[in-house]
Amino acid sequence: MISTRLTAQFGLTHPVISAPMALASGGRLAAAVSRAGGLGLIGGGYGDGAWLEREYAEAGNEGVGVGFITWSLANAPELLDAALARRPRALFLSFGDPAPFAPAIHAADTPLICQVQTLDDARAALDAGAAVLVAQGTEAGGHGARRATMTLVPEVADLLTARAPDVLLCAAGGIADGRGLAAALALGADGAVVGSRFWASEECLVHPGLQAAAVAASGDDTLRTSAVDIARGRDWPERFDIRVLRNGFTDRWHADPEGLRAAIGTEGPRWGDAAAAGDASVANPIIGEAAGLMRDIRPAAELLERMTAEAEAILTAGAARVT
Amino acid sequence: MISTRLTAQFGLTHPVISAPMALASGGRLAAAVSRAGGLGLIGGGYGDGAWLEREYAEAGNEGVGVGFITWSLANAPELLDAALARRPRALFLSFGDPAPFAPAIHAADTPLICQVQTLDDARAALDAGAAVLVAQGTEAGGHGARRATMTLVPEVADLLTARAPDVLLCAAGGIADGRGLAAALALGADGAVVGSRFWASEECLVHPGLQAAAVAASGDDTLRTSAVDIARGRDWPERFDIRVLRNGFTDRWHADPEGLRAAIGTEGPRWGDAAAAGDASVANPIIGEAAGLMRDIRPAAELLERMTAEAEAILTAGAARVT
Repeated sequence: MISTRLTAQFGLTHPVISAPMALASGGRLAAAVSRAGGLGLIGGGYGDGAWLEREYAEAGNEGVGVGFITWSLANAPELLDAALARRPRALFLSFGDPAPFAPAIHAADTPLICQVQTLDDARAALDAGAAVLVAQGTEAGGHGARRATMTLVPEVADLLTARAPDVLLCAAGGIADGRGLAAALALGADGAVVGSRFWASEECLVHPGLQAAAVAASGDDTLRTSAVDIARGRDWPERFDIRVLRNGFTDRWHADPEGLRAAIGTEGPRWGDAAAAGDASVANPIIGEAAGLMRDIRPAAELLERMTAEAEAILTAGAARVT
Repeated sequence: MISTRLTAQFGLTHPVISAPMALASGGRLAAAVSRAGGLGLIGGGYGDGAWLEREYAEAGNEGVGVGFITWSLANAPELLDAALARRPRALFLSFGDPAPFAPAIHAADTPLICQVQTLDDARAALDAGAAVLVAQGTEAGGHGARRATMTLVPEVADLLTARAPDVLLCAAGGIADGRGLAAALALGADGAVVGSRFWASEECLVHPGLQAAAVAASGDDTLRTSAVDIARGRDWPERFDIRVLRNGFTDRWHADPEGLRAAIGTEGPRWGDAAAAGDASVANPIIGEAAGLMRDIRPAAELLERMTAEAEAILTAGAARVT
């Protein structure tokens, strides 16, 4: 086992948190990760109350946390109270200003985890009293921004050292196996937030057809785009785009967002129908550069065990290099 | 000391190569890195024969290597023969197809190091008989492409395991301290290629005014752009842009390349004059996201010692986390 401040403070066996991927990280996935010794998070995403109730029920009595898209939560703040009433192990906010929600989270005595994409984000998260910062690099699947994990993590670590040494740090973006986990720890993180690798798990709420396309791909086959959010009618702030597997849809529309908006009456339903049907030639799997490091769909617990066992071996071998 | 296949095969004390930064990595910097136990490379860049002769002389009898921009070398292939005649410790090629140059390099019994930005690049480098592949992530300063170090390195490592297990692998992009070096090794690399950190060294051939701006910056302050190459009249292939520190020049022109081309008669000389004068408000320091990890200008040997000592401590501490 790998011991860090994250495992100590959250009572984990492994320093790994599953990312709260909107509509993909349901109760079964979160519970499986927590049961295996990580910290599983339900992806509250855009805030569908009925979906959340169902997924909380799916998680059963396994201790899980929940995450929200911050700018979207502002449109349905009542979901935060409902989430906190369930006493989640952590409340994870990303993509927006956490300040308006922090008081309620602190009042519930729930640890606040803030995902950040820049140093300014990190400072805002500290101002909001976050217990854990997650430095997310651009290689991540789904929404994100421009900085890479390799430099953002140590730069945020230096900020924490100077300003808030008791606040923990996790790395996110591109971490799908033991190599990435060991690298995250070397960069100064106390643990890793893993999205894509758990997206390609048996418990994830995504069509197997999309998963099959993802595990067949290289990291060279992903891109950051606004086309998928236009297709889905999601009104994201401009600084965040979404990394997906490229396909004919993004080949056609990535460079032509205005054309896509003009054709949205047919292109929107075409993308949505394909997502429901698992047709990756039209609907883009929402996956990061780590696609190139994943070759199978397995239970989340097995993926977590594989990742952490590999990281342990790397950490042990690394010390043997020093003479 | 950290022992890897790279230190063994190249007779190094430290698994670190200084990047052959065009016009910045001169003989003094390369010699300083080699003298301190790394592998120093002169940046042959666009291929100025007189500049190269002078910098070879500056390196003196210290064993150094040399690097070229592959697509540019095609315009002046005679420089390769001149370089090989000096028996460099390695010949480093990046940004283009190495195949036309590989036979001469092999005939000279000089190790060929190929920097790659994608898996296709990696396959081409193997086809060309490279002894070392350098997987360069997008966080790197100067020219590069889109993949991030965190995922490109392990994905290329898997390719080498399957196809060419005796070929070495280095990581490049975002590595400026011991955290990055230790992370690179965890990701599966045998060593690291370091650019930005040595760009901000006393020996680097760059104006102190530009260095001062870089070490004051955050990694959030860099961007990839084509504006700087337009300003300098460098005709780069479209797939490679250049990461620099943003400033008023890129604020104005980054999104308006056609406007810049139309104004090149005044904007080109303005940028060039500012670079010569060290005015970072106009001329962009050519630096990576690692800018946020650098706070001083020091001799290259000191930077190398600091980086490797920190990496040794991290590797040792990492093993102690495993219980």
